[in-house]
Amino acid sequence: MQLSRRAEAIQESPIRKLAPLANAARARGVRIYNLNIGQPDVPTPPEFLKAVTAFSEPVLAYGPSDGLPELRQAMVEYFRRYEIALEPRDILIANGGSEAILFAFNVVADQGQEIIIPEPFYTNYNGYAEMANLKVVPVRTRAEDGFHLPPDAALEKAVTPRTRAMLICSPNNPTGTVLAWEELERLAAFVKRHDLFLIADEVYKEFTYGGARHRSVLELAGIEDRVIVVDSISKRFSACGARVGAVISRNREVMAATLKFGQARLCPPTLEQLGAVAAYQLPESYFDAVRAEYQRRREVMFEALTTDPDIVLRKPAGAFYMIVKMAGVADSDDFARFLLEDFHLDGETVMVAPAGGFYATPGAGTDEVRMAYVLETPKIARAMQVFLAGLERYRTAGSRS
Amino acid sequence: MQLSRRAEAIQESPIRKLAPLANAARARGVRIYNLNIGQPDVPTPPEFLKAVTAFSEPVLAYGPSDGLPELRQAMVEYFRRYEIALEPRDILIANGGSEAILFAFNVVADQGQEIIIPEPFYTNYNGYAEMANLKVVPVRTRAEDGFHLPPDAALEKAVTPRTRAMLICSPNNPTGTVLAWEELERLAAFVKRHDLFLIADEVYKEFTYGGARHRSVLELAGIEDRVIVVDSISKRFSACGARVGAVISRNREVMAATLKFGQARLCPPTLEQLGAVAAYQLPESYFDAVRAEYQRRREVMFEALTTDPDIVLRKPAGAFYMIVKMAGVADSDDFARFLLEDFHLDGETVMVAPAGGFYATPGAGTDEVRMAYVLETPKIARAMQVFLAGLERYRTAGSRS
Repeated sequence: MQLSRRAEAIQESPIRKLAPLANAARARGVRIYNLNIGQPDVPTPPEFLKAVTAFSEPVLAYGPSDGLPELRQAMVEYFRRYEIALEPRDILIANGGSEAILFAFNVVADQGQEIIIPEPFYTNYNGYAEMANLKVVPVRTRAEDGFHLPPDAALEKAVTPRTRAMLICSPNNPTGTVLAWEELERLAAFVKRHDLFLIADEVYKEFTYGGARHRSVLELAGIEDRVIVVDSISKRFSACGARVGAVISRNREVMAATLKFGQARLCPPTLEQLGAVAAYQLPESYFDAVRAEYQRRREVMFEALTTDPDIVLRKPAGAFYMIVKMAGVADSDDFARFLLEDFHLDGETVMVAPAGGFYATPGAGTDEVRMAYVLETPKIARAMQVFLAGLERYRTAGSRS
Repeated sequence: MQLSRRAEAIQESPIRKLAPLANAARARGVRIYNLNIGQPDVPTPPEFLKAVTAFSEPVLAYGPSDGLPELRQAMVEYFRRYEIALEPRDILIANGGSEAILFAFNVVADQGQEIIIPEPFYTNYNGYAEMANLKVVPVRTRAEDGFHLPPDAALEKAVTPRTRAMLICSPNNPTGTVLAWEELERLAAFVKRHDLFLIADEVYKEFTYGGARHRSVLELAGIEDRVIVVDSISKRFSACGARVGAVISRNREVMAATLKFGQARLCPPTLEQLGAVAAYQLPESYFDAVRAEYQRRREVMFEALTTDPDIVLRKPAGAFYMIVKMAGVADSDDFARFLLEDFHLDGETVMVAPAGGFYATPGAGTDEVRMAYVLETPKIARAMQVFLAGLERYRTAGSRS
């Protein structure tokens, strides 16, 4: 049976595809430090599960297609802390940030139209672009610039008559880069100039370090009707398995259209929305400990990696990822496999995500890997020793074969 | 800001659009019997919530993209009761039957290609077709035939070079019709003849009455690689708010492609999957009481409606819906509004779903409404008195205006 072209075209998860090699290494008794996937180890707030278990309706019925009113209200109050004024009607609860991306793509663009995304980017945008039959047009950002936006000229070159939106992610997965306010203002002018939507994935907004502060595109004046934010509780409250995200926009037509797509899938999960309400009511101090912990991890990882003069790495200000560019590695996919198959240091190795999968441009990122600092500090310190030893061994050998 | 063409095109929920009129009627003190929406009133099994609250991991982490292994195993065992042999790899857990439809559409067809669906059909198929840029090609079924399949000649006429699949729903929403084994065999020959996939929405499989038995397309021999089943616990365990569905197929390429789409949205909700495991482990006797209750409701509704000689209605064998065709009603949308705005019987009225929204053919179904028998028997009996009185009044008045 012939499947669809898009079923053939959609990319396999570059983060998960090394799993069989990791399993084989574990079977040989090798201990693996998992730096390859952004699964936080921070405990989910106990208030979350307590709120879920308090559910006492006899029937777990369909909820509203735009989400529980109490959750949308809790989000309004949460955003007020950041001096962002929203109303419940500006928010639609989605099945995770994932579905929020799918809805945003469907609302702004038709098949064959284009979305500009700075690369490297979160690989799953590709999957949604495939489902919505959109073309992702990458704009290159570089390790040497800390993956900040390129000059306007580079953005301009990406625009065609088919461009409908610019999508950014800040704090960024996979780079950890936090866009400066000046960059956001530059984007505002850009989308205005070309009559585009500005879609912003801000699911890591709380995770900024060393005094960096996340600024939201919702704070940009004069482009309120162009802005669509993709949001999620997955990282915010370490509740990745809950699948509670949101589409946020002050453009009423955008929200009305999003609701129609939302009605087609009936509603997001009820129980986990109840948990989210409780999480959103946690005091702001909840994030202090979480942020301090990630900041420590970032320091340890950054300090260790920059002892290698042949690594290019600007200290990222947010999220919990780094893209590490390495001289002497021409094929980071091969290098990641080497670490799992042909290397260990005293019975230990590391699993990293080859960065090629985060680029739309063929051949880009092949000298880079993404690392997530989602392990406790002592483990990260040790993982860095193991990684640097593996890198040295790989460089000496020239390549795996 | 110009939205996408599909955002403009996607249909508003025909079931939910009368809600403002119902709210206004309630505000006037009118009591409404809600026959318009398929929200079961059967209690969710307490085992479901108990299993959710037993969750004790510190982190609500991402689950597997294809669902929890224990849930897929529980489903394998559940299907064995119906003598349907599956393996866990034949099952991918989706965010409700809704996402299962989206995945199935994406896997079998590309933009501009066609899916044949007997009409009237579950209106949300339209939303997914819009998202996947597919064209729904309707094949008409009729109240006079109990909404069973038309002769082969009618199916043949719907085939074009762009046809990729036939989609059926049995037991059917909105008609309640249960396809006979002979009809399934006819479909098997049809999809073989034209090299199509056969997608079957079987989310009401347990809900059959009066000795009718649901037969699954998974029982058809010789077309295993063409069959994709869309499944859900929403109705099965009265857990609509859980969003736990599944794509089921023995075609390995289909499942591999479905997994790639599944990876793009990371995972289905973890807590509610745990609830589903417990529900699937309930004894088969769980359904006896549920089925007996719905069967009683069906009898009461059917007996009452067929006292009107100008209603066309063959007794449907499954689900909990009926499509009621009424002489003297030319515009059932207007009639449904009349019931809410201009009519009451001793302070009571009924809310029904105009059937036009269940048809792709313009103008079809305008003399029909869908009713769901999701209320207790005495309420259904009373609702039928109110409905028939309203119908008589409407016919006498000629129309609303």
